[in-house]
Amino acid sequence: MKKHYDVAIIGGGIIGMSIAYHLAKAGKQVVLFEASEVGKQTTSAAAGMLGAHAEGEGYEDTFFQVGRASQSLYEKLKVDLRHESGIDIRTSAGGIMKVAFTEEEKQALCRMQHLSTFEWIDAGSVKKCMPQMAENILGAGLIKEDVHVEPYAVCRAFWKAAVMYGAEVKECTPVIEVKREKEALAIRTTVGTFTCDDLTVASGVWSGRFFEELGLSHSLYPVKGECVSVWNQGPALEHTIYHDHCYIVQRDSGKLVVGATMKPNEWQTVPTLGGIEAVIQKASQLMPSIKEMPIDQCWAGLRPATNDRHPYIGRHPEDQRILFAAGHYRNGILLAPITGEIIRDLIIGKPVKKEWLHAFRIGRKEALFV
Amino acid sequence: MKKHYDVAIIGGGIIGMSIAYHLAKAGKQVVLFEASEVGKQTTSAAAGMLGAHAEGEGYEDTFFQVGRASQSLYEKLKVDLRHESGIDIRTSAGGIMKVAFTEEEKQALCRMQHLSTFEWIDAGSVKKCMPQMAENILGAGLIKEDVHVEPYAVCRAFWKAAVMYGAEVKECTPVIEVKREKEALAIRTTVGTFTCDDLTVASGVWSGRFFEELGLSHSLYPVKGECVSVWNQGPALEHTIYHDHCYIVQRDSGKLVVGATMKPNEWQTVPTLGGIEAVIQKASQLMPSIKEMPIDQCWAGLRPATNDRHPYIGRHPEDQRILFAAGHYRNGILLAPITGEIIRDLIIGKPVKKEWLHAFRIGRKEALFV
Amino acid sequence: MKKHYDVAIIGGGIIGMSIAYHLAKAGKQVVLFEASEVGKQTTSAAAGMLGAHAEGEGYEDTFFQVGRASQSLYEKLKVDLRHESGIDIRTSAGGIMKVAFTEEEKQALCRMQHLSTFEWIDAGSVKKCMPQMAENILGAGLIKEDVHVEPYAVCRAFWKAAVMYGAEVKECTPVIEVKREKEALAIRTTVGTFTCDDLTVASGVWSGRFFEELGLSHSLYPVKGECVSVWNQGPALEHTIYHDHCYIVQRDSGKLVVGATMKPNEWQTVPTLGGIEAVIQKASQLMPSIKEMPIDQCWAGLRPATNDRHPYIGRHPEDQRILFAAGHYRNGILLAPITGEIIRDLIIGKPVKKEWLHAFRIGRKEALFV
Amino acid sequence: MKKHYDVAIIGGGIIGMSIAYHLAKAGKQVVLFEASEVGKQTTSAAAGMLGAHAEGEGYEDTFFQVGRASQSLYEKLKVDLRHESGIDIRTSAGGIMKVAFTEEEKQALCRMQHLSTFEWIDAGSVKKCMPQMAENILGAGLIKEDVHVEPYAVCRAFWKAAVMYGAEVKECTPVIEVKREKEALAIRTTVGTFTCDDLTVASGVWSGRFFEELGLSHSLYPVKGECVSVWNQGPALEHTIYHDHCYIVQRDSGKLVVGATMKPNEWQTVPTLGGIEAVIQKASQLMPSIKEMPIDQCWAGLRPATNDRHPYIGRHPEDQRILFAAGHYRNGILLAPITGEIIRDLIIGKPVKKEWLHAFRIGRKEALFV
Repeated sequence: MKKHYDVAIIGGGIIGMSIAYHLAKAGKQVVLFEASEVGKQTTSAAAGMLGAHAEGEGYEDTFFQVGRASQSLYEKLKVDLRHESGIDIRTSAGGIMKVAFTEEEKQALCRMQHLSTFEWIDAGSVKKCMPQMAENILGAGLIKEDVHVEPYAVCRAFWKAAVMYGAEVKECTPVIEVKREKEALAIRTTVGTFTCDDLTVASGVWSGRFFEELGLSHSLYPVKGECVSVWNQGPALEHTIYHDHCYIVQRDSGKLVVGATMKPNEWQTVPTLGGIEAVIQKASQLMPSIKEMPIDQCWAGLRPATNDRHPYIGRHPEDQRILFAAGHYRNGILLAPITGEIIRDLIIGKPVKKEWLHAFRIGRKEALFV
Repeated sequence: MKKHYDVAIIGGGIIGMSIAYHLAKAGKQVVLFEASEVGKQTTSAAAGMLGAHAEGEGYEDTFFQVGRASQSLYEKLKVDLRHESGIDIRTSAGGIMKVAFTEEEKQALCRMQHLSTFEWIDAGSVKKCMPQMAENILGAGLIKEDVHVEPYAVCRAFWKAAVMYGAEVKECTPVIEVKREKEALAIRTTVGTFTCDDLTVASGVWSGRFFEELGLSHSLYPVKGECVSVWNQGPALEHTIYHDHCYIVQRDSGKLVVGATMKPNEWQTVPTLGGIEAVIQKASQLMPSIKEMPIDQCWAGLRPATNDRHPYIGRHPEDQRILFAAGHYRNGILLAPITGEIIRDLIIGKPVKKEWLHAFRIGRKEALFV
Repeated sequence: MKKHYDVAIIGGGIIGMSIAYHLAKAGKQVVLFEASEVGKQTTSAAAGMLGAHAEGEGYEDTFFQVGRASQSLYEKLKVDLRHESGIDIRTSAGGIMKVAFTEEEKQALCRMQHLSTFEWIDAGSVKKCMPQMAENILGAGLIKEDVHVEPYAVCRAFWKAAVMYGAEVKECTPVIEVKREKEALAIRTTVGTFTCDDLTVASGVWSGRFFEELGLSHSLYPVKGECVSVWNQGPALEHTIYHDHCYIVQRDSGKLVVGATMKPNEWQTVPTLGGIEAVIQKASQLMPSIKEMPIDQCWAGLRPATNDRHPYIGRHPEDQRILFAAGHYRNGILLAPITGEIIRDLIIGKPVKKEWLHAFRIGRKEALFV
Repeated sequence: MKKHYDVAIIGGGIIGMSIAYHLAKAGKQVVLFEASEVGKQTTSAAAGMLGAHAEGEGYEDTFFQVGRASQSLYEKLKVDLRHESGIDIRTSAGGIMKVAFTEEEKQALCRMQHLSTFEWIDAGSVKKCMPQMAENILGAGLIKEDVHVEPYAVCRAFWKAAVMYGAEVKECTPVIEVKREKEALAIRTTVGTFTCDDLTVASGVWSGRFFEELGLSHSLYPVKGECVSVWNQGPALEHTIYHDHCYIVQRDSGKLVVGATMKPNEWQTVPTLGGIEAVIQKASQLMPSIKEMPIDQCWAGLRPATNDRHPYIGRHPEDQRILFAAGHYRNGILLAPITGEIIRDLIIGKPVKKEWLHAFRIGRKEALFV
């Protein structure tokens, strides 16, 4: 007889681990399959900005609200995870400064001005608190709530805590096939077949095959991002610097994390010479003194993108036992807590906001077509 | 329309790459799919002994003959690959010393004495040429032909040379499904579907799922091996030291490679504290001075084992278009050249020795049952 | 004309950097010379236990009092350094459990029982809060105040903050000679000669040459310690496990740090195979499940030892301009804050407790002879 | 009584090790002191071009002749060192292509045309054998003799072989002071004082202090060079590409080594972001496809420069017992063999060409003043 679980999860990144944590904590018997090592792919490559504002385009839409809700969940999580796992997720204070170099960029930023979380800072004041910043900026929008965490630490903490609550995590265990039998779902893996009542697919950019095999249309493709870190030899950055999808984040270790390129449809996870050059050029433009700082490391990761840049979170339209949580693009770290809660609530039968489910439903047209 | 190739290969370790190389050189249009990075799994973890005698049990059987044939292919390959790829595969001279600590071990070794390649060396003579060796040995069997190469270099050289001959190698591209359509085989991957006339499955211990999906019985399971390397601060070892599945190999960089544990059915590829302890204990028993040497690195790999410890090399019994080359256990580096030639010859229609095909045929009872 | 400073410091480990920080904050013009890279030698190799009780032998002596005083300074420092440098020194809670395997060890521990900071925990209670612990312990002494920090983070924070207060730190700058001229001290380095009113030698085990050159008798020799870290796959350790100079420390990253061997008079800083084996054996004895955990890293460092195991902190008996702060043995991380304060106070003319100066004076007989 | 040696050497880079090797092989009792680890500083950072022509300015002068003589010594050394140490120094074939982008550069190159080792290759022919080369070159000078080796391997081989011949090598042992006593030289180190009949200072850019302490005028300063390596995904480079102090070298591992920046008077050995950017820009200009290749590593090293860019090789003018071999700038790997021979011959009393000794004599005006 095959071993049976309440819920199986495919994918051991921050999304899958948040789901495992929330379900195990709610008393479910959980198994998670990770094809390589937990948290070593997209999760580790991320800078960890909780950029509810920084990444958003429209500031009143559902996506923004979900981002803000997830951001605020981190406050309690930080305490809980420290207690449950012994791991510190290293939340920073300080927030993000979105920089404007042109009048156009300034106006775009100032469209956020009605938000209580947004504050416009003129060039002079920016230079006072951030003397490292480039001379030629016009000013910056400061969003204090958009702090950051260390993504791998969050994932590791979810993992440890989930295991403490009874979850089983199988690393180096690729899933080969999902069989939809009547009485249960059967998950065939390299170490045998397991059955479960519910299944969540959460393997980021590698989730595409399961959509296909399970009969669904979808869009899901990688956008490779290359990063570099340095040891900050000047004063610590009070705020993350952000401009045009690039950022410089101050870690509480004394390092700066700089990223990232945007290369659609590249699957290779080693940075190229040209990618690193582009990151350095962009960073020097934002903070000239960074060129003198000693290099620490280079790396790259694959953001899982959909056509509308929003994730799929919800049930398979034709098989209620199967759920998806994938395609978080640049927002996986931000959205991990709320994604874990939504999937948990769907499975244990607690209510979830209808407009959220609608916004992230599988098979929506906006995601499928450009 | 889907892109079509003469031959598709699944798996970018040394076996898959040897096949790609031999087929591309023979003029075939070849594509190879590697789920992660080329040569970074089992191939990189191997010490690279060409242990035709060292690993064998019976010394007149087919397996021994195939091993010897493959060993001798390396002589020409070394030259060809240097020329074609610019890469040196770092063949050593010197061979292997199989050590005996007991009379029983001595007698077992001396069963090879009728072989012209085997020479019994008494304890006194061993100490003269190998003063590092443990005091309490009874003697050793020297097999000069069992030299070694650097496995990752061989794989990288096959790769580069195969590409020079026109092969396409797709890294970070897992194969999701193989569809056996009438006109061609269709290989569904994360980057699209490709068609081919012939397919070879060569993904080591991860090949099991394809046997299953393609309707075949098989045995295939990992035997994890943990290794450590040190900088040799004494005189270079003239010969590899070998005893009871453990070895100390002298690299021409000045390092010693020491391995390896034997842990069946473990899929994790990070060494454990206990595994490293076991390797150190075994190595110190063979060569006491190694305890004083500075550590370089620790790692682990997964040997792909079958029940009779021999690989599957040959055609699918019911679908001639599908071939397998997997399950090489401790002999993947040794057998890579001959495996490449056999698969090439099967595909291009050149004759292959019948007893070889028989010995390694898919579905043989010896492999299936213990 | 040569550049002049109020104070020069030789050595950029945690001791030298604490001195630089305290003096720069007090308004002194400070320069620090580090022969290689800041904090990359003994400081980085340390586990960071603030073991005021754990390392002590006598529990009412001056050394114990100084240790406790320094330990309590970390509470304020943690906050100040976070603010001044942006770096988190990662203080743990939890303290140390000193384990007894024999009646003798138990009695030795219980000599601390009159201390309010010490609590004896019997074997049953230990197993409840620390189920990872070996079965055969008799019990353990819990000292909650003996928490730990991350040594490199502390050193980096002192560095950054010292620079913010105006200190100059010159890496890769060995000091060649100290000339005692009448009007000032002249420090000859690879990048030129600098003058100063006061000089502090704080280069750990490499300080010996300056004692000699400056005409002083002293003892100072390395005790090499080899360490290993693993990823803790079980529940987080609530307390550091400590026994017979060995320890297992839980980092808030999820790693365990295990150390360390004791090899007097070894100067090499790469761990040997035998050293790593010894650490693994000791760790498995304290916590058997650690053998199954995946290895993270191996390293080694040199503790600077004197004959009485206590540091030299104070003035040169014949030249008031020269001070020493070296020889902290296993207590460098613990004593860094108080050492910084003592040296600062001596230089700026604030009073320092006489018995402290007496205990750590240069040239004391206890340090010189065994 | 202090331990006595025939010869002491300060510095365990490729120069010091070549001297140790040549002297030990000639029967001398040799001790070598290395302040950190053998071969891990300037030696490891070098690309290893034997650029007798590539680096030279005048092609008939003594410097050129010495370079050519040293280059040819590598042919025998390769074989000897393999035999003596078991280490392969990885000599390449192929030589260097010095590229011209302008008429002026072409004319400068063609001044070598009378040399039998030089061949001018026009743009069309370059593209045939080196299709990776930039489109806009005018042609290139091919110098087949300027092959390359792996510097760390050479140094390690000298080390091992020297030890086989009886030399003692003390790592992690800084020399504090050299005392010129009547009967012998006394070398004070961190591990005690040793005496010797002859001393050679060979500690590269860190030799300056010994010139000073031994009463000599000299120039010696670092020129920092930053490098990067990539995995060559195209065909292997047949020849090293060289232009304006920058180069792309093909290793026989399949990697390309690219370097290097030129930053005088920088002592820090970690590459900066700006330095890496400059290397990438230069490399892309020579070989555009390199931008697509995956990065392997970044590093930096310190070339030891004198004002006339030539080394000091010879005796102290006032104390015949002291010799220097330092300041090899960009030519340390090339000149290591001949430097070892010259110093050996001076010490054992074999004749050395007078014009060579004259060209590299200590205290020559050309070296002292710009």
